[in-house]
Amino acid sequence: MDTLAPREITMMFLALGILLFCARALGELVRRCNQPSVLGEILAGILLGPTVLGVLAPGLSAALFPVSGGGAVMLEGLTTLAIVLFLLVAGMEINLSTVWRQGKAALLVALLGMLVPFSLGFSAAWWLPGLMGYRPGSEHLPFALFMATALSISALPIIVKILMDLNIYRSDLGVTVVAAAVCNDILGWLVFAVILGMVGGHGGVPIGHTIWMTLVFTLAMLTVVPWLIHRILPWLQAYTSWPAGVLGFALTLCLLAAAFTEWLGIHAIFGSFLAGVALGQSRHLKEQTRTTLDEFVSFIFAPLFFASIGLKVNFATHFNPWLILSVLVLAFTGKVVGSVLGGRLGGLSWRESWGAGVGMSAQGTMGIILGVLALQIGLISQEVFVALVVMALVTSLVSGPLLQWVLRLKKPRSFDDYLDSSRFLRPLNALNRVGVIKEITDLLAETEGIDAEAVRGAVWDRERIMATGIGMGVAVPHARVEGLKADGIPAQVICMILSPMEDNGAQLEIQADIAATFRNGHLLEKVLQVSGYTEFLSLIRSERKG
Amino acid sequence: MDTLAPREITMMFLALGILLFCARALGELVRRCNQPSVLGEILAGILLGPTVLGVLAPGLSAALFPVSGGGAVMLEGLTTLAIVLFLLVAGMEINLSTVWRQGKAALLVALLGMLVPFSLGFSAAWWLPGLMGYRPGSEHLPFALFMATALSISALPIIVKILMDLNIYRSDLGVTVVAAAVCNDILGWLVFAVILGMVGGHGGVPIGHTIWMTLVFTLAMLTVVPWLIHRILPWLQAYTSWPAGVLGFALTLCLLAAAFTEWLGIHAIFGSFLAGVALGQSRHLKEQTRTTLDEFVSFIFAPLFFASIGLKVNFATHFNPWLILSVLVLAFTGKVVGSVLGGRLGGLSWRESWGAGVGMSAQGTMGIILGVLALQIGLISQEVFVALVVMALVTSLVSGPLLQWVLRLKKPRSFDDYLDSSRFLRPLNALNRVGVIKEITDLLAETEGIDAEAVRGAVWDRERIMATGIGMGVAVPHARVEGLKADGIPAQVICMILSPMEDNGAQLEIQADIAATFRNGHLLEKVLQVSGYTEFLSLIRSERKG
Repeated sequence: MDTLAPREITMMFLALGILLFCARALGELVRRCNQPSVLGEILAGILLGPTVLGVLAPGLSAALFPVSGGGAVMLEGLTTLAIVLFLLVAGMEINLSTVWRQGKAALLVALLGMLVPFSLGFSAAWWLPGLMGYRPGSEHLPFALFMATALSISALPIIVKILMDLNIYRSDLGVTVVAAAVCNDILGWLVFAVILGMVGGHGGVPIGHTIWMTLVFTLAMLTVVPWLIHRILPWLQAYTSWPAGVLGFALTLCLLAAAFTEWLGIHAIFGSFLAGVALGQSRHLKEQTRTTLDEFVSFIFAPLFFASIGLKVNFATHFNPWLILSVLVLAFTGKVVGSVLGGRLGGLSWRESWGAGVGMSAQGTMGIILGVLALQIGLISQEVFVALVVMALVTSLVSGPLLQWVLRLKKPRSFDDYLDSSRFLRPLNALNRVGVIKEITDLLAETEGIDAEAVRGAVWDRERIMATGIGMGVAVPHARVEGLKADGIPAQVICMILSPMEDNGAQLEIQADIAATFRNGHLLEKVLQVSGYTEFLSLIRSERKG
Repeated sequence: MDTLAPREITMMFLALGILLFCARALGELVRRCNQPSVLGEILAGILLGPTVLGVLAPGLSAALFPVSGGGAVMLEGLTTLAIVLFLLVAGMEINLSTVWRQGKAALLVALLGMLVPFSLGFSAAWWLPGLMGYRPGSEHLPFALFMATALSISALPIIVKILMDLNIYRSDLGVTVVAAAVCNDILGWLVFAVILGMVGGHGGVPIGHTIWMTLVFTLAMLTVVPWLIHRILPWLQAYTSWPAGVLGFALTLCLLAAAFTEWLGIHAIFGSFLAGVALGQSRHLKEQTRTTLDEFVSFIFAPLFFASIGLKVNFATHFNPWLILSVLVLAFTGKVVGSVLGGRLGGLSWRESWGAGVGMSAQGTMGIILGVLALQIGLISQEVFVALVVMALVTSLVSGPLLQWVLRLKKPRSFDDYLDSSRFLRPLNALNRVGVIKEITDLLAETEGIDAEAVRGAVWDRERIMATGIGMGVAVPHARVEGLKADGIPAQVICMILSPMEDNGAQLEIQADIAATFRNGHLLEKVLQVSGYTEFLSLIRSERKG
């Protein structure tokens, strides 16, 4: 029996541990700069792979991430499983009914947002093959079709994340963009399935069969299977142990669908994505089940997969700036122009159309996954792969800020963004309103270098007009209102808000956020027991988002 | 680069899907008979492995679960990862402070409960090697030590599960048993580490070093590391994204600790178990983080691992009844006698001591894990492995019912155990109290074959004495009380309870359970929207345990 030697097991766990740690650490660093953490995760792989560690310490790199033997097989199998599970979760996020609801506009954005970059990509790869990194001798048509698909497929998970971050996920425009991205992805995957069929030899099934079976399978997973699942789920929750029954069912479905599409000759991820879509439609699927799957997969498996991308290629030696630039320009302009046109034809205003265009321009994760597969079957060179990864990184990077700028959005401010250990005071010595306000303003005068008397005056001017107790033992004195005990409950947590004269919304927004955070009654109890600032911040952050 | 062929990937997903499905399905079946689901999971592996499927359809069995090539390596690597993660979660369930709190009694139960079966096992393996399945020619001392350990190690996860099921997990006796089982396991693992060191050649470190480094590592993971973790967790929750930061940290720690102990020459699971213990001690570790890890690992990875046990050995050809009987008798009597003695010396009453003895007798999971490792390194024969698995199954099977009998416990009754689709009525036609009671009793008369008039009389006798509205729109008419609207809220859910004359507690217990279930206000809203009995039961089961 072929088994893993103890040394291989040691190295496997060490490699997974280091990969996960670096991916998470860089992911956090990147998030600090308001960028999606996937960028940091990919960067971690580039640092640990042949590009950096392989040059600095070739022995260590080869020992940790071997290219042959049981360790290599294990790492590849595990990252394949990781991406299959990640697509299950991504599929579950999709709400098919939004696609129907937004109807025309979404469909037009999806179609034109796909057609324009697809045509641009295909034309470039067909008539200017050199510019697009085509290696003479390999199959030209599948290559051109692949480049067209890679330039026109969107990045659903990233788009969803950006829309959520900007708080417009459930707005009309948000739903339109997501619906369009869903159509776009399903179309893109189908085209890719056809390409894989053309390249052939991949599955155990002839090309023609692959295509019609893919279509039938897709249709079934979007219609009959969700209907069945909706009927099976209540039965599972009623008669099997909870939540083991539902989790086991979801994973079994995912694994079998993955096996089926892999056998068809298209990749396993296609099956698990559709299994996720089918599962996600039922309102019987509990929030808790989604959370368990989502958190484990998104925060553990997905980072491992995205970090493993950087292990495959030397990004330095295969870095071709002209190729990257052409891929980037074609992908970005094609996607934006196509989506804006689609939006206008679908009856959106100019600003909404531009929003849809910019929103659709994020071409991150899905493009990279296609790239990995294409690289594996030898359809593209390492240079093209590097270009696709860089294109994905750059478009994901600019999409969020651009969308914010086009729609003139502001991220909702949350009060913990303004907290700082130097402005945290515990316990307060003063026992009454006057004393408390003096104590806090004195501290702020010291840390912020502002005039304590002036601040105190402004706070008191507002205190005299209206009360600042907001219930639940929390008071919010600020440069507008009054009264530490106005709601009759002694305030135990006091947050002083000082905002610039010209910023009208700041104070109300932050105050609303404080009230929302403390609405959970247990939080106050726990907050009163913290031993310092870090514990306080830890409580606030984990309770409100949890 | 060694990669997995598409056919191997197809087979991997197919095998995982089938394994998970069978493990979960049989696990549920076994749970129906009030037995721990791990029994069904192991059974699934026996059915799919060489014992049954390998005989009926050798080709299919070999294709699904190959013994060589990439597929075999992948399956082994994945089940190794699964058991490492399962021990992380098992470790997290341990509360070290209970060990200190129960002090003397727990320690004596642990020590004697380990010493007696250890001595019995060692003596038998040393002086009657033939009886214990010793193969002449292999190393005798490590074999005898291993058998002694395997017969004396407990099954912490199963014990915890049984105590929780019986509702005595937090009672004094419950805490004593768990604390004793924790000591027992840690001691058992240390002895096993020494054995692995003696067999040698396993790790990259000399035996002597293995032993002292294991001791230092264990001590650190029980003292310094938990202290550090308690300080790191608030920082992670405050300054990294939630819950990604904490999850990534926990997994990284687990993987690195696993790599370290595997390198030491003891198995990776030892490191992840201690990492789990170290993590589990901090009260900063949120319930949600535990749940995410626990559910994903316990309900997906653990079934895969336990099912994979049956794939390793042909249980039919290696079934040696005399060997099994001696292992079973020695393990069970040794563990019970030792623990009862320990309990008496520790000052427990006779009944409590017997409770502790029977509670400790479950020797399931940990014994099997040791058996798998011992089989891999050739320390034991397949016959001995089969005997250990059977012993684990049987002791886990009898421990719960015996404990219930010794302590004269009754499982708390929950009302959904008494629900049945034939007794479910929706919507009710009647609009007032008299009509509703008539409608329900008529139905019960039909389905249960009892006299409607007599029941109605009994219910009305009670209704006249006191009200049965229990708030939140729920009423519970039964053979004791009165009034469908007594709390002023129109009852929308009506549960009629009919209990036997001689069962005093039944009605109150079930009524309390109904009240507790509907305390969550959202449940009523959802219940009123169900389309049938299955959906109703599904809601009740998933909301109350969720």
